[in-house]
Amino acid sequence: MTIENWTCPIPLRDHPTIVMGHGGGGQLSAELIDHMFVPAFGNGELAELADAAVLDLEGSISFSTDTFTVHPRFFPGGDIGELAINGTVNDVAMRGAVPRYLSVGLILEEGLPMAELGVIVNSMAKAAAHAGVTIVTGDTKVVDRGHGDGVYINTTGIGTMRPGADIRPQRASTGDVIIVSGTMGDHGMAIMSVREGLEFEASIRSDSAALNHMIGDVLDTGADVHVLRDPTRGGLAASLNEIATAADVGVLIEERAIPVDRTVAAACEMLGMDPMYVANEGKVVAFVHAGDADLVLAAMRSHPEGVNATIIGEVTNTHRGMVAARTPLGSTRVVDMQVGEQLPRIC
Amino acid sequence: MTIENWTCPIPLRDHPTIVMGHGGGGQLSAELIDHMFVPAFGNGELAELADAAVLDLEGSISFSTDTFTVHPRFFPGGDIGELAINGTVNDVAMRGAVPRYLSVGLILEEGLPMAELGVIVNSMAKAAAHAGVTIVTGDTKVVDRGHGDGVYINTTGIGTMRPGADIRPQRASTGDVIIVSGTMGDHGMAIMSVREGLEFEASIRSDSAALNHMIGDVLDTGADVHVLRDPTRGGLAASLNEIATAADVGVLIEERAIPVDRTVAAACEMLGMDPMYVANEGKVVAFVHAGDADLVLAAMRSHPEGVNATIIGEVTNTHRGMVAARTPLGSTRVVDMQVGEQLPRIC
Repeated sequence: MTIENWTCPIPLRDHPTIVMGHGGGGQLSAELIDHMFVPAFGNGELAELADAAVLDLEGSISFSTDTFTVHPRFFPGGDIGELAINGTVNDVAMRGAVPRYLSVGLILEEGLPMAELGVIVNSMAKAAAHAGVTIVTGDTKVVDRGHGDGVYINTTGIGTMRPGADIRPQRASTGDVIIVSGTMGDHGMAIMSVREGLEFEASIRSDSAALNHMIGDVLDTGADVHVLRDPTRGGLAASLNEIATAADVGVLIEERAIPVDRTVAAACEMLGMDPMYVANEGKVVAFVHAGDADLVLAAMRSHPEGVNATIIGEVTNTHRGMVAARTPLGSTRVVDMQVGEQLPRIC
Repeated sequence: MTIENWTCPIPLRDHPTIVMGHGGGGQLSAELIDHMFVPAFGNGELAELADAAVLDLEGSISFSTDTFTVHPRFFPGGDIGELAINGTVNDVAMRGAVPRYLSVGLILEEGLPMAELGVIVNSMAKAAAHAGVTIVTGDTKVVDRGHGDGVYINTTGIGTMRPGADIRPQRASTGDVIIVSGTMGDHGMAIMSVREGLEFEASIRSDSAALNHMIGDVLDTGADVHVLRDPTRGGLAASLNEIATAADVGVLIEERAIPVDRTVAAACEMLGMDPMYVANEGKVVAFVHAGDADLVLAAMRSHPEGVNATIIGEVTNTHRGMVAARTPLGSTRVVDMQVGEQLPRIC
């Protein structure tokens, strides 16, 4: 979906850009809902236009929220709309749940081209359909020109827990094998390259993807999966540190085993960055009972998002609460959590 | 709670203002979570710091999202934090549900004073405790100075449906009595007065309040409540028009019966505004089976938020899809939905 092939419906055409009134709760708000959001996301609950959606669910749920402020809004491999759907779908799935419903909260800046919003909304609709989730409720606010940044998107998701699933950082255990589902750092370097106008711009694509179907297949194998985490902001290093702290275990990884795309590696080297700290938006780190590693790898590799799945390390009962990496030269270094961030506003 | 009596904890004190790294997923993000959010909102699920919260629920749920961009962030009668909790609690309750859980998504602007964030977060915690809801998951993004507006807050709420509740705009029926729980226009005029530096500034207070306890008592009477709506953006006029359209019924109100605070009325007159179009943040419009009106009024009036509850009109089988008002002079006028808004960014 590109800006060129989205067609603005009547009567939104009367407003080529977003005006304050589109967030005012009056006729302009209603037009945006009736002619853009309901057609794109259309379903019974949303169309009822009540203050809240009523949903039938059984058993426990997984509940997660994420706000997306990525700059630029369009980048190789995706856009802010797709990212906002996939990001929350993935967070919901990381607890061992089947993502079902999403809410969408938009903050639009006065002056945003209507056509651009149309493309983003369609991109969200497409991503939601692909992930198998339904957008059931939403909200739109408009802020004055200069007080926002085009579009910010909050998505909040609900999933139904798979029976018996108990997947959380605290369950990492000595002897667990650590698996990543593919190359590290693609999303962050795609954003960085386009933002800085680097020569890599065209060749590095964001890995933005919904992982719920792949995770479902992994769990269907019956493998004893202890932890799932999507290494977004802060990258693999932050995720591993959070897990090591939460479970009070040691994490030992083989630096050489971490899959990194060749162009991403080159871009990182040029910019002095470490792919372990760069954000991903379509990858998962799994801590798995060692005997089940092959089951998990096979399930991941049967999906396009997981073809490069590989083992990168293990959980130890030494250096508890810390992450260590064995370098290609055979020495071991501590992998800290970064203080701030290498790349602001990558999601 | 005021800025003066909130004390910034160590180690947040090292950063008197928000920096980009507080949204980066590294150590600075962790400090904000560990030393501000968990102490304020503290509970088991949030403290687990997983990608999603796992919640045990029974039966159907009510699910609603709202983003708050109100300017200014502090105003007589409340602040953006309290508003963000109450607004979503109310939306969830409007379907006849008991609000239970909230997510919070923050967009912070680089340079926001840490002390101000502390006050807002504490205000949220206090409002959540008062409403009886738990903040179970959250997300924080930081945008560059000049690309946000201090704080934007998304809250998304989950409530458990009361057994048998079927409350939605489509259920408005001929003969229903229309009740409002109190004076109209307080919130919008409080914001407007402080924003414009009007002389009313000190005396008009926002009505921001959580209505779930009052609504619970209304429904506990067993009254046949068809529709509940909180008249926020677009005011009473927008809510009534939406309901008339959704249910394809006529709405007839007595203009003189609409309760309006004397100072609010004076401010509206001075600014050429109609209180019917001005936002409320602690009021509900109820469409009720005529025989149950007294039950509903009594239940509302037993709460401080509902002492001024009164009947303002009825549902007719004429002028379907439209709202008409009988003026004090005895004539009847059409109450349109406004096109844009009178007051931008009031919530």
